[in-house]
Amino acid sequence: MKVEMINTGSELMLGRVLNTHQQWLCRRLADLGHVVTRQVAVADTGREIQNAVRDALKRADLIITTGGLGPTSDDLTREVIAELLGKKLVPNLAVRAHIEHFFARRGWPRPEKTEVETLVPEGAEVFLNAVGTAPGLAMKIAAGNPAALTPQWLIMLPGPPRELRAMFDQFVGPLLKREFAETIFVCRTLRTTGLGESRVQELVETDLQSLVAQGLEVGYCARPGAVDVRLTARGAPAGPLVAQGEAALQRILGANIYGQDDEEIEQVVVNLLKQRRKTLAVAESCTGGLIANRITDVPGASEVFLGGVVSYANSAKERFLGVRPETLLEHGAVSAAVACEMAAGAREKFGSDYALAVTGIAGPTGGTAEKPPGTVFIALATGTGVAVKKLLNPWDRVVFKQVTSTQAMEWLRRTLSGPASSAES
Amino acid sequence: MKVEMINTGSELMLGRVLNTHQQWLCRRLADLGHVVTRQVAVADTGREIQNAVRDALKRADLIITTGGLGPTSDDLTREVIAELLGKKLVPNLAVRAHIEHFFARRGWPRPEKTEVETLVPEGAEVFLNAVGTAPGLAMKIAAGNPAALTPQWLIMLPGPPRELRAMFDQFVGPLLKREFAETIFVCRTLRTTGLGESRVQELVETDLQSLVAQGLEVGYCARPGAVDVRLTARGAPAGPLVAQGEAALQRILGANIYGQDDEEIEQVVVNLLKQRRKTLAVAESCTGGLIANRITDVPGASEVFLGGVVSYANSAKERFLGVRPETLLEHGAVSAAVACEMAAGAREKFGSDYALAVTGIAGPTGGTAEKPPGTVFIALATGTGVAVKKLLNPWDRVVFKQVTSTQAMEWLRRTLSGPASSAES
Repeated sequence: MKVEMINTGSELMLGRVLNTHQQWLCRRLADLGHVVTRQVAVADTGREIQNAVRDALKRADLIITTGGLGPTSDDLTREVIAELLGKKLVPNLAVRAHIEHFFARRGWPRPEKTEVETLVPEGAEVFLNAVGTAPGLAMKIAAGNPAALTPQWLIMLPGPPRELRAMFDQFVGPLLKREFAETIFVCRTLRTTGLGESRVQELVETDLQSLVAQGLEVGYCARPGAVDVRLTARGAPAGPLVAQGEAALQRILGANIYGQDDEEIEQVVVNLLKQRRKTLAVAESCTGGLIANRITDVPGASEVFLGGVVSYANSAKERFLGVRPETLLEHGAVSAAVACEMAAGAREKFGSDYALAVTGIAGPTGGTAEKPPGTVFIALATGTGVAVKKLLNPWDRVVFKQVTSTQAMEWLRRTLSGPASSAES
Repeated sequence: MKVEMINTGSELMLGRVLNTHQQWLCRRLADLGHVVTRQVAVADTGREIQNAVRDALKRADLIITTGGLGPTSDDLTREVIAELLGKKLVPNLAVRAHIEHFFARRGWPRPEKTEVETLVPEGAEVFLNAVGTAPGLAMKIAAGNPAALTPQWLIMLPGPPRELRAMFDQFVGPLLKREFAETIFVCRTLRTTGLGESRVQELVETDLQSLVAQGLEVGYCARPGAVDVRLTARGAPAGPLVAQGEAALQRILGANIYGQDDEEIEQVVVNLLKQRRKTLAVAESCTGGLIANRITDVPGASEVFLGGVVSYANSAKERFLGVRPETLLEHGAVSAAVACEMAAGAREKFGSDYALAVTGIAGPTGGTAEKPPGTVFIALATGTGVAVKKLLNPWDRVVFKQVTSTQAMEWLRRTLSGPASSAES
């Protein structure tokens, strides 16, 4: 079965927004056993949209478009697809009632422009929008249609992510289960730190060889400070194949694996803290609150996370964390000694079991020959004392913050996990 | 001129990673006057990559591929494109020397697998990788080639974003200037808050009508809590047309416009603080450090940002911010009174000119009938006192944090900007 996705939007082609639909929809579809074979983005002009849909109809059994169903003048998807398929647009009363209710409930006047959203190609299934106004549309294209090879489904979803996501889960998933046979598809990603991409493959490929011969697919993806190894398989033996692959990776890569699938290191850390009934506080200089922010993205973080201090100014390091003025004077704010006092101070003042502290030079300015931009000290305070590491992360400011916050949480993760073997570290 | 981009990677089709190349490259190309007409993503199998490149060769003058140039077994782009175009792969000595130097400088053994990265299709221009090992490749496809309509350029870039970005700026930009005539292209985005997408269009479209008739294109893009209005035009009159459109939008939308183009509200706030020589501190409960994190993403933030407290636990609100236990007891942690004491406490203890404080319920749990998830209080302390607002942001946890942090910074932005007219707020 071939599945294609078409994302429309001139803002995409001009690089003014990030296309997040692609990942979200591909992921949901893969989990339902339908791997997207091609994804296309075009500007929201009528000709580009029609060309892209016409091309996809030559290849795909299922086509999903996103965007262009709203009320403004650059929302053309419904019109050009109706035209391509030779369908009339007819007003839909259920959609109109839904839109009127949407505005009435909020006490807002209904903008005239929303009238166009009530128009539906004849014969289309309508998905009412649970969080907005524009409905989604699904059309079964009969085999007799000159544009189509075999019976196909064309599904149109609105562009705003909240609307699209709610609609997919409420309507599209059930429609796919109803209309298409399911295939078994198993995917497992193991996420590692501390090893480069080619080193990871060198370490694991011999052991995976016989599974690959049986149909296991292995993929590698390098991210800042991390490498994902992805195992996929299809059909009846998929489950055992992926499980055997995973066991091999666990044996070889050991403690370098911090999580699996979508797990972010902050989730792993919060879960470990919950399991061990321990609490955490942070003291951040150069990461500017990113560690606290990532930790508090995890639902339920408040059970284990007591808080943090973003001590950008030296006076804040003294006042809130008890860093001594003479330590700042003697060693400078970016130093092992200050990192240790920040960690110890955060642990004491928040009354937490663990405290992480970071101080460094995010750049682009502020570096010296001895401490170039990217220099960072990470300290971890526990019940048995304070330890500190010096690292160099010479990336741009945002990547620097991301990599440094991951390294700090990885240290805590290994500490919480206890002694374990790692391939390298 | 038609420009197409092909992103390869099975992880994209499985929805395991976000495609950030699309936005970055589209943006860079548009700024050079070349708007991408179609973007395609396919799995990194040889057949899918070849099909996508073959299709693009039928339409485009310039094709840029990303990914599949690395050392692992799923890196197939260079081989399948050489095959499609009937070119031999030959070892390139400059590339080999570059890769050997890359590993020698780091004192690491060179993995055998990197040998494949030295292979280059005959006649290709080579882009040495400033931050990695795999080179980029550019091929001029002669008109006589059976696969091509006219002379075309096919450019292959490596997948890791840091490598791709450095290589584009160093090599691809200059190549495009050398090989293709430049077109004038002007794009200006005005970013607004406080108005819905159809309301924005209703307010502005009459005034823009005559400019649209002269060739101005207007696009709207809704984001969480914000709407972007994008003005674009091409050719000689592009500059004046966009400038006149911008003047009209400024007149109509007034204070609802917080910035332009890529400007994030945190940059606007940092710049305003710098101009006015004022300092900021933050006290965050439900946003968990996101405001501090966004502010410190701005280079030079340390000039105006003194720091913050992430006071997740009530004890942290008392100890670090001086919130009174009786206020917590009487009103609860999520209350106007606590927000005000947090803001006043942060301002006093950091010694800053302004302090923002937020306390609320990010959810999904922790709500009550009176204070459902999404309830948030934002307080702003200034030299003249403390003000507080109650808002409801009933979105998921991550969107809640994003919207709330934007609202808090928007309040500060309007305060720093002084009295100004806004369409609505």
